[in-house]
Amino acid sequence: MTEAASPAPAAPPSPPAGLRVTALAGGVGGARFLRGLLAALRSASAPDLRAAEVTVVGNTADDITLHGLRVCPDLDSVMYTLGGGIDDERGWGRSDETSGVADELAAYGQQPTWFTLGDKDIATHLVRTRLLREGLPLSEVTARLCERWRPGVRLLPMTDDVVETHVDLAPVDPAAHAGEAGGRRVHFQEWWVRLHAKVPALRIEPLGAAAARPAPGVLEALSDADVVVLPPSNPVVSIGTILQVPGVRDALRATTAPVVGVSPVIGGAPVRGMADACLAALGVPSTAEAVAGLYADFLDGWLVAEADAFEPGGAHGGRLRVLPRPLLMSGPDATAALARAALDLGLALSPAGASRT
Amino acid sequence: MTEAASPAPAAPPSPPAGLRVTALAGGVGGARFLRGLLAALRSASAPDLRAAEVTVVGNTADDITLHGLRVCPDLDSVMYTLGGGIDDERGWGRSDETSGVADELAAYGQQPTWFTLGDKDIATHLVRTRLLREGLPLSEVTARLCERWRPGVRLLPMTDDVVETHVDLAPVDPAAHAGEAGGRRVHFQEWWVRLHAKVPALRIEPLGAAAARPAPGVLEALSDADVVVLPPSNPVVSIGTILQVPGVRDALRATTAPVVGVSPVIGGAPVRGMADACLAALGVPSTAEAVAGLYADFLDGWLVAEADAFEPGGAHGGRLRVLPRPLLMSGPDATAALARAALDLGLALSPAGASRT
Repeated sequence: MTEAASPAPAAPPSPPAGLRVTALAGGVGGARFLRGLLAALRSASAPDLRAAEVTVVGNTADDITLHGLRVCPDLDSVMYTLGGGIDDERGWGRSDETSGVADELAAYGQQPTWFTLGDKDIATHLVRTRLLREGLPLSEVTARLCERWRPGVRLLPMTDDVVETHVDLAPVDPAAHAGEAGGRRVHFQEWWVRLHAKVPALRIEPLGAAAARPAPGVLEALSDADVVVLPPSNPVVSIGTILQVPGVRDALRATTAPVVGVSPVIGGAPVRGMADACLAALGVPSTAEAVAGLYADFLDGWLVAEADAFEPGGAHGGRLRVLPRPLLMSGPDATAALARAALDLGLALSPAGASRT
Repeated sequence: MTEAASPAPAAPPSPPAGLRVTALAGGVGGARFLRGLLAALRSASAPDLRAAEVTVVGNTADDITLHGLRVCPDLDSVMYTLGGGIDDERGWGRSDETSGVADELAAYGQQPTWFTLGDKDIATHLVRTRLLREGLPLSEVTARLCERWRPGVRLLPMTDDVVETHVDLAPVDPAAHAGEAGGRRVHFQEWWVRLHAKVPALRIEPLGAAAARPAPGVLEALSDADVVVLPPSNPVVSIGTILQVPGVRDALRATTAPVVGVSPVIGGAPVRGMADACLAALGVPSTAEAVAGLYADFLDGWLVAEADAFEPGGAHGGRLRVLPRPLLMSGPDATAALARAALDLGLALSPAGASRT
């Protein structure tokens, strides 16, 4: 959010300081956007863009403990995607993956069977789980895992504390939902992976968020950024849960950096995933405008599909700049162009940054 | 050990009570012998042999925690071998095994790399580790794992307490031992698997054994047995560590059942494994006679190779019966015949059992 900031001092002539970009990110969509962002930065002509330092604050509210292993799907999607280990077809998990362990766990009758961990992926969870048990905070564990993957960003979990989103299911006809009668609370992953979010959610709650502390560096990454970017991640269970970590939302309101986002909704439907099912639980329509409304108190720029352009209302305090752009991340070039558009919008909105583009 | 037992009452006519056989066992050799024992029992003509109930007291002193997983190599070798999941070529681990997880752990730089856990095997360790963390004792965890494998025996760990054998290495020339200078204490598995027991051991100590309690059922399985069998397992780090659990040796001395064993040494060399390196640490020669001497206070019958026959000395109190037999477990038939010979020797030495054969 850019407020009434005093004019920034002139940048020192050399060496050019790298642009400080901070992004909040969920899993698949966020990771792909970030890959495009890095590609855009690396191919930029401006030296401070090429030297940009990107910090990613990753959602950890969809973390889950399975078979005694701590699994952080969103952090891993970012790490694998930017580190070159992702299964690009699926968008999550490792490429050339096998299921030797999972098949055996099923043979042992171990539950759940609806969340399959691949063998390569399990190695990540083994390392993470062991380090966590040794007492390292998740942020330090994540840094260690990234020593291998070198994702090209500083990847921070939103918090080192345990936050797990749970979902209150509406009562439903079991015959229509593979035996699921609803009317109970389940872990987000069960709703998402087992039930494909087809059983309506009455309430989505990131348990532990209210007492969570931002991981070291998270608030500083927001306050010290030149641009803050919101990829087209799920506004409820990805970006939304990060925003519920005490201090994060305040830091977004207070930062002098412009906060620009990419709508995860195109023409009334989520581009990927099942964000509409999440928005429904909040009583929020699946529109680019409504999602922007969730960020009204700090959002400065918003990329939307041509058909979704809107005139920002009073909630945005006359600050929001809405820009129509092609939003489909249909390939590396389109994704890099989208990321560049978000970056350019941020730089244009930055008191000091317009000259950088 | 058979002592001055009163004559047993006549067996009830029907249904015939199954013979109660209890075996102490290490890993590969013990597991193969036990498979032969089960085959011999199933093909026996005597109903009480066909209905025999076999209890196996498994060594747990070579257990180790790797990558946060609790690994019980000997229990698993018995479970996999009797349950049909063993890699028969190696004698340990799962058949058709893959190394997806291990390769990734190595890519993460995780130590140790000298102990490779297969993917299927890791599933076993995941289940075990999770249940142990939930507070279940190892004996109960083992019973749960056996629900899948149905090994045809009751498999008991020697103790539910943690016992881990460590080895004091002699100082050696690093150039001759892949950089290992010795002169330090290592986990048994490091000595065995990484160093192939080629660095001399000054001392072999099952840490925790002195304070360990026998697992539920262990002492009863020895006192209530009709025959106790010692497979040709390692007399130091397998049978020897079981004997160091307080109460076990006393139970073997006190039981009215004959205790018969199979020499793990043929013609001065261990049949398999590196038992000689272990015996050397105790200053015990690698001979069938010397190994019998380790069991002098409770051993009643001892199968040895033809060339190893000896006249039992005074340490055996005139009780030991030494019987030459072909000891090589070269295949299923030879192994079953060897197991049957051990069983027959036990029955012959049993006050009530001679008529059973």
